[in-house]
Amino acid sequence: MKKDLGTVQAVFPMPVLVIAAYDKAGTIQTMNAAWGQICDTDKIALFLDADHATTKAIRETGAFTVALADRTHMAEADYVGIVSGNQVADKFARSGLHAAKSSRVNAPVLEEFPVAMECTLAEIAETKTLFAVVGTIVNTLAEERVLDEQGKVDPAKLDAIAFDQFRHGYYASGEKAGQAWNAGSALAKAALGR
Amino acid sequence: MKKDLGTVQAVFPMPVLVIAAYDKAGTIQTMNAAWGQICDTDKIALFLDADHATTKAIRETGAFTVALADRTHMAEADYVGIVSGNQVADKFARSGLHAAKSSRVNAPVLEEFPVAMECTLAEIAETKTLFAVVGTIVNTLAEERVLDEQGKVDPAKLDAIAFDQFRHGYYASGEKAGQAWNAGSALAKAALGR
Repeated sequence: MKKDLGTVQAVFPMPVLVIAAYDKAGTIQTMNAAWGQICDTDKIALFLDADHATTKAIRETGAFTVALADRTHMAEADYVGIVSGNQVADKFARSGLHAAKSSRVNAPVLEEFPVAMECTLAEIAETKTLFAVVGTIVNTLAEERVLDEQGKVDPAKLDAIAFDQFRHGYYASGEKAGQAWNAGSALAKAALGR
Repeated sequence: MKKDLGTVQAVFPMPVLVIAAYDKAGTIQTMNAAWGQICDTDKIALFLDADHATTKAIRETGAFTVALADRTHMAEADYVGIVSGNQVADKFARSGLHAAKSSRVNAPVLEEFPVAMECTLAEIAETKTLFAVVGTIVNTLAEERVLDEQGKVDPAKLDAIAFDQFRHGYYASGEKAGQAWNAGSALAKAALGR
C-alpha cells in the first residue's frame, strides 16, 4: 500500500553537475545543478534558472563545460551551489578550484573534477513547459585514473557523488549491482520465445 | 592531465526510471529510461524516442507514471528495456510486474517499485535540438517502508539502482557522503564574509 506524498521531485539518483563558463568579461562563472541530463547521443539539457550568473555567461560566450563532482571535492561542489556569482564577484577564486581554458570550446575546464564534457551551446530551448540550456558535447575529458582497460570511465574509480532531492543529501556510489541488457535477459528470452 | 574520450554521454549517476502508460486499447505499455530528469518543481522531462510503444501510449492517453527501479526488481526493470512493446504484445504480462490504475491519472501504477510519480502529459516538447515528453507531477506515491520519520523518502531505505552509461552497468546506492548547503558552508561563509 503506497502513501501519497503530493508533488515531489522524485528522481533518484540525480547527478551533481558542476557547470562552468566564462562571462563576457572573461570571469569564470560556475554553479552546480542536479537537474540536468543527457537528452540525445551528443546533447545535454540543463534546467537552470535564466538569471543565474552561469546561465548568463553561457548565453554570452556560447560554450560551457559540465563536470561530475567527486567525493573528494564535495565541499567545493557544494560551495558553488550555495554562493551566487551575482553576489560574490570573486566566487570562483574563493572556491579553491582551478581551471584552464578548454582547447576546443571557449569555456573553462575545472582541474579538480575527474570527468568533464566540453560543450557548445546548441540552443536555449524554451517551450510552454520547458526552459533548458542545451549543449552539444564536443568532447569529454577524463583523468586516466578513472578509466578502465578499455579506456571507458569506470564508476567504481570515478567516486562521483549523487544528489538526493528528497532530503538534500549527497550519496556515494555503491557497488555494481548488475549489467544492463543482461539482468533481465531470462525474462526477455522467455518473452521473445528463444 | 585529462585524456580525450570524444563525445561521451558522461552523466553519472543516471536514474533507472520505469515509465508506464495505458495505450488506447487499455494495454499497459512500459519501458525504462535513464535519460529523464526533473525540469521544474512540478515537472519531469523524459527524452524518449517517438516510436516507442510507451511514447505512443502517452500521446494517446495523456498520462503516465514514472517509478524508480530498486535493486530487488532490477531484472524486471531491465527486461522492460530489452523487449519492445511494439514486438511483444504481452510484454507487460510477461514482465512479472503487477499494476493497478492510478486514482488520479489515467495510467497504471506498478506495484513492485517503491516510489512512483503520477503524471499528466504537459507537453510533447519539440525544438530544433530537443524532443521531450514533459509530465506534470500530480502526486508521488511511496511505500511506507522507504520513508523516514518526517515522511520523506530516505535513499538508504529506497535501495534504488543507478544506470552507468559508460559501461552499461547498474549500481547500488552507497552511503551518505554529506548534506547539501552544508558540505561547502565553510567556503561559503568565508566568501560571504560571515
